[in-house]
Amino acid sequence: MSEKIVIFDTTLRDGEQSPGASLNGFEKLEIARQLAKLHVDVIEAGFPVSSPAQFEAVKRIADESQVIIAGLARAKEIDVKSAYDALKNAKHPRIHTFLCTSDIHILGKFGESKYGATLEEKRKTVLKMACDSVAYAKTFVGDVEFSAEDAGRTDIGFLSDVIEATIEAGAVTVNIPDTTGYTFPLEFGAKIAELKRRVKNIDKAIISVHCHNDLGLAVANSLSAIQNGARQVECTINGIGERAGNASLEEIVMALKVRHDICGYHTDTDFTEIYNTSRMVSGFTGIIVQPNKAVVGENAFAHESGIHQDGMLKNKQTYEIMTPESVGVNKTKIILGRHSGRHGLKARLNELGYHPTEEEMQKVYETFLELADKKKEIFDDDLRVLMGDEIYKEDELYELEYMHVNAGTGTIPTATVQLKSEQKIIQESSTGDGPVDAVFNAIERALDLKPAVESYSVRSVTSGRQALGEVIVRIREGENSFTGRGTSTDIIEASAKGYLQAINQYFVFVKSGGEIGDKV
Amino acid sequence: MSEKIVIFDTTLRDGEQSPGASLNGFEKLEIARQLAKLHVDVIEAGFPVSSPAQFEAVKRIADESQVIIAGLARAKEIDVKSAYDALKNAKHPRIHTFLCTSDIHILGKFGESKYGATLEEKRKTVLKMACDSVAYAKTFVGDVEFSAEDAGRTDIGFLSDVIEATIEAGAVTVNIPDTTGYTFPLEFGAKIAELKRRVKNIDKAIISVHCHNDLGLAVANSLSAIQNGARQVECTINGIGERAGNASLEEIVMALKVRHDICGYHTDTDFTEIYNTSRMVSGFTGIIVQPNKAVVGENAFAHESGIHQDGMLKNKQTYEIMTPESVGVNKTKIILGRHSGRHGLKARLNELGYHPTEEEMQKVYETFLELADKKKEIFDDDLRVLMGDEIYKEDELYELEYMHVNAGTGTIPTATVQLKSEQKIIQESSTGDGPVDAVFNAIERALDLKPAVESYSVRSVTSGRQALGEVIVRIREGENSFTGRGTSTDIIEASAKGYLQAINQYFVFVKSGGEIGDKV
Repeated sequence: MSEKIVIFDTTLRDGEQSPGASLNGFEKLEIARQLAKLHVDVIEAGFPVSSPAQFEAVKRIADESQVIIAGLARAKEIDVKSAYDALKNAKHPRIHTFLCTSDIHILGKFGESKYGATLEEKRKTVLKMACDSVAYAKTFVGDVEFSAEDAGRTDIGFLSDVIEATIEAGAVTVNIPDTTGYTFPLEFGAKIAELKRRVKNIDKAIISVHCHNDLGLAVANSLSAIQNGARQVECTINGIGERAGNASLEEIVMALKVRHDICGYHTDTDFTEIYNTSRMVSGFTGIIVQPNKAVVGENAFAHESGIHQDGMLKNKQTYEIMTPESVGVNKTKIILGRHSGRHGLKARLNELGYHPTEEEMQKVYETFLELADKKKEIFDDDLRVLMGDEIYKEDELYELEYMHVNAGTGTIPTATVQLKSEQKIIQESSTGDGPVDAVFNAIERALDLKPAVESYSVRSVTSGRQALGEVIVRIREGENSFTGRGTSTDIIEASAKGYLQAINQYFVFVKSGGEIGDKV
Repeated sequence: MSEKIVIFDTTLRDGEQSPGASLNGFEKLEIARQLAKLHVDVIEAGFPVSSPAQFEAVKRIADESQVIIAGLARAKEIDVKSAYDALKNAKHPRIHTFLCTSDIHILGKFGESKYGATLEEKRKTVLKMACDSVAYAKTFVGDVEFSAEDAGRTDIGFLSDVIEATIEAGAVTVNIPDTTGYTFPLEFGAKIAELKRRVKNIDKAIISVHCHNDLGLAVANSLSAIQNGARQVECTINGIGERAGNASLEEIVMALKVRHDICGYHTDTDFTEIYNTSRMVSGFTGIIVQPNKAVVGENAFAHESGIHQDGMLKNKQTYEIMTPESVGVNKTKIILGRHSGRHGLKARLNELGYHPTEEEMQKVYETFLELADKKKEIFDDDLRVLMGDEIYKEDELYELEYMHVNAGTGTIPTATVQLKSEQKIIQESSTGDGPVDAVFNAIERALDLKPAVESYSVRSVTSGRQALGEVIVRIREGENSFTGRGTSTDIIEASAKGYLQAINQYFVFVKSGGEIGDKV
């Protein structure tokens, strides 16, 4: 039997730090369930101390999951304590604490003289803080992971000292992040190999890596690290995350699988859940997957050129090193319709990784029936959109009751909307540069708010004539961005719903207070 | 001075093979000009024998470019001759001929007994065909490149024989493609190193690599090959291409630049043109770039989390290994408006890489003025969209003269269109599931055609209230896909224009006859 690589998924933590990707608690819970179905080994569920909403989301996942659930914590008691509080009902809790170790980070963050007069002294401070944090976490749980932030650019001598000391302090996983996506595969692999040589107690911990993709090398660096002794990789679905994102989970596990002949490592992944997971994450975060994305892109298995197509007919292996079925594309093509009934709908949703409560199910079923009136055939992607758009709304302050637009060449686009809240019904009309602009203007008039529209995107979710359109709107008010999603066979209505949802998110944020950022 | 790596851009050949990415002649010419501005060394302009349109596009680029222009040719006389005919006015023509060398490809494509009874005999046939093709190409030009298709899975012994023989036959560049994106960096690098050892006359040719991204390793494999002796890399802008695409040019050149300390190679790239080139290619092909794409993604330089932002303020280098400015993001933020005048508009378009003729410029300027009435500030991205949508239309059989929609909750969406062709004016109306569907239905009624809508996407091109919406529609008629783009501040109008453009492309295709595929 080959050696196992531990898959540590950080879609819900680093992935969620992608600009505009904020997920609500329901969405996080569904993604965590889907990750469990994908058989990842560790789910990093969030950064509990950063906000009450983060804390609550981590807690909900920890309360129900059978998988190891990690919570992030800076090397501070308040962070570690908060992580533990969120994780304490978890069957397998892990506290993941981190501190920077590269000179450039140390000098940037610990510049004040209270941390030491020289770099050497500051390093001592950092080393002590790291160990104290691990030891403190160890008072709560056995499973403690330590990350040396910016390890990719950290001097190997100091890095070895920190790793040795934190293992001594109780860390059972030591993570070597290439925080800025700076290293090359050979170089990063050599760093892992060198750590194995230098750190005396290294066999008491699992070496983990966490690679960023700024130079397009995150997956290669992760694989190189594995070949040099790392036994855990931190990665995200669709490679989302800060800036150019993290190593992409699906690419790493498929590379290990397809090239088991030269690697000799395995993961416990259920590969056929890859596609479902990718679609769910893209749907909930609003971060699109480019068509030429490896493994999960729309074109990943498409063969365009005549020569290719000819070759494919003769022998599938000519141009295909893995089949679409192996990653769950078109695993089963079940088409639902009005006749499917509530039971059929629920069964399919479960298969796709969604688990609405009975109450939510009522709402889903009603929306499903409305859609079935417009579309004869309802595909998996329609259901995914339904779930993303209709079900997991929290605190919907304002609802769209009515909308009408009149537009065309030579017509001044005009929209009328009626919004309903608990207190009142508001109606307004406005003109605009186009019908969407007119609707946005009318909504803004009704609510007396004028946020900046940062991005606006529409996609058709299924192919064919009656495709559902999904609109994602990101707005900015002050320092913060809010994302809303709307779905309809009418693109203007979808836009109105998406915009209103983004505005509702803003109102929720204002009510609840802010949130600090998080990272490794 | 460090050694130079030759950048061979195949955006116009392999990149154009991405499903739905077909480019017209004008677009190809503009991309070629922009690639020259980016200072790539070789532009693969297309596969001349595959269709008259391909031939013509390669010829137009070859006729004017100062850069080395390559034309692809299977190992057949007709292909090589056609490539030469297209390239003959080029200042620096290169014929790029290819043939498969892996057993799996040989058995798949040369199964018939006329190619030999055994694999051994078939290999001999392949070897001879490859050499004959190179020798024939050599009768036309000095600069001949040979590619051993699926070299990544080719036995090293046979691959060495083929490379040695084709160099002997006159190839001055020998390309080692990882056609199926199958190899790992160490493995692929070792293959290059082994070729250098085995092939006696290897110093008479430049070793090139061409990596596909099926496992997310194309860039890492290219870099590993360079570190083992390759001196040319074949790559595409935004990493587009067959399936999961090719190695991404921008990632390779930035990796070599940012890590010059450990690599010691350089390219002649003008890095500040990277962003312009990326946007142009995305605009013309309709292939979106995901936000978390390295170097050119929308979030590549965005720092979301609080810790990151804090770190960034203290020291930019904390999380940034390259600056957005270094790749031409926000190089200069020039905002145009009505006052800018024709001269100002033209100057800016040239800076962005667009070169409309005087006649085209008239049309651009008119559209620009119309837009300036709706939007006070016109950004670079608005101009990019204008150029993609308004200018490079060929054979516009039908134009949208008038359009009106009426839609909303509780309203049956209804659209009216009037289309104009040289012969006649047609008007029709229709209902639909939503306003876009209603417009599509009305257009279909008017033209008596009902293509399948494969994909439909909309994006706002600039931020802010009066953003231009760009719609990309891909339709399928029979075996072929056609892409259209439409732009407007009115999303419904943009959709109508995009749909009509796709249909116009279909009519052009029907008039001109089909096209066979191409690949390496």
